[in-house]
Amino acid sequence: MRYHRIPDESIRRLPLYLRGLLSLLEEGQQSVSSRNLADFLGVNSWQIRKDFSYFGAFGTPGVGYNIEKLVKQVKKILKLDVVQKAALVGVGNLGLAVLAYPGFGIYDFRVAAAFDNDPKKVGRKIENLTIEDASKLRTLKRRGISLAIIAVPREAAQQTADALVKAGVRGILNFSPCHITVPKKVKVITIDIAMDLACLPYYMPAG
Amino acid sequence: MRYHRIPDESIRRLPLYLRGLLSLLEEGQQSVSSRNLADFLGVNSWQIRKDFSYFGAFGTPGVGYNIEKLVKQVKKILKLDVVQKAALVGVGNLGLAVLAYPGFGIYDFRVAAAFDNDPKKVGRKIENLTIEDASKLRTLKRRGISLAIIAVPREAAQQTADALVKAGVRGILNFSPCHITVPKKVKVITIDIAMDLACLPYYMPAG
Repeated sequence: MRYHRIPDESIRRLPLYLRGLLSLLEEGQQSVSSRNLADFLGVNSWQIRKDFSYFGAFGTPGVGYNIEKLVKQVKKILKLDVVQKAALVGVGNLGLAVLAYPGFGIYDFRVAAAFDNDPKKVGRKIENLTIEDASKLRTLKRRGISLAIIAVPREAAQQTADALVKAGVRGILNFSPCHITVPKKVKVITIDIAMDLACLPYYMPAG
Repeated sequence: MRYHRIPDESIRRLPLYLRGLLSLLEEGQQSVSSRNLADFLGVNSWQIRKDFSYFGAFGTPGVGYNIEKLVKQVKKILKLDVVQKAALVGVGNLGLAVLAYPGFGIYDFRVAAAFDNDPKKVGRKIENLTIEDASKLRTLKRRGISLAIIAVPREAAQQTADALVKAGVRGILNFSPCHITVPKKVKVITIDIAMDLACLPYYMPAG
């Protein structure tokens, strides 16, 4: 594959499109115009056309995009055409929310392991998973888990990331509101709730 | 103010820059080049220069940006120059994680009210807040709260959004993995953990 020219911002939007396309497919639709997909998702249609054009998906005028074909293409680009297993580190409130999260299924994701360093939590069963001691992180590679979600306190985020990288993890979703440093081969996406919240007032009318 | 030409993507990045600038200020620095700020944050320096140029902030060659001045400008654009109060709706695991979140302070945010519709939760004290019954949402306007965080189950997300809009809320951070429909005057940012996770495999090396 050689899709490396797709801008990060477009990659960010592909999962949204994928969710919309899967919903439409479920409703029995076979094709969709960029305009209708845009309305359905509340985004710009030119943006959709541009994002799809990066990987050579062009709708047929008057017909639109073949949804099933497009779903396959998007999944292939995002490497979601195989089930991806992720490990969760940190089973506090946020970790519990992640484990109960209903949205992973449509992307063929599965949280396949959960870790904590609190002896009171280790061994407990939650959502079909038994919480493991954080020292067991090194087993991840052997278990084919190369994605991880960090939901530990800020102070422990960097050392957790270090342990994950050592265990062969190559993609990290970080919920700690801090910058973590990893080797270039590892991709980190940080979700900082405060940062997202900080964007809102900009859009609010004065007064 | 007439900053309405700033692209959404740039607005999204401003809180990150702000966090970096505040850290540098705390370390005692008075000015910073776009290159050094970029290295500090792990982003592109041309992107920083471009984003700042939208509101007329240009560094002085050889000196860089005056940090204090830039912080004020960014805060003003994001309307973070006044303390913003937010309401939390839904005090489950995710809601509890939001209440305990350490990252709001630097943006002068305060979660000033928490609501749930579970009678067992209403009246409980958490992080200096008393959980209120969801029927009390209509008091938000009077209390000067125009931001809200939705952390309710997916099925209840839309009706919660409707109630918030009716209560005068104009900015919503939505954690439910679903599209919610609001009037144009209301800005919604949806954080879909699964979508962010879905971007990661794209960046991972094959095998």
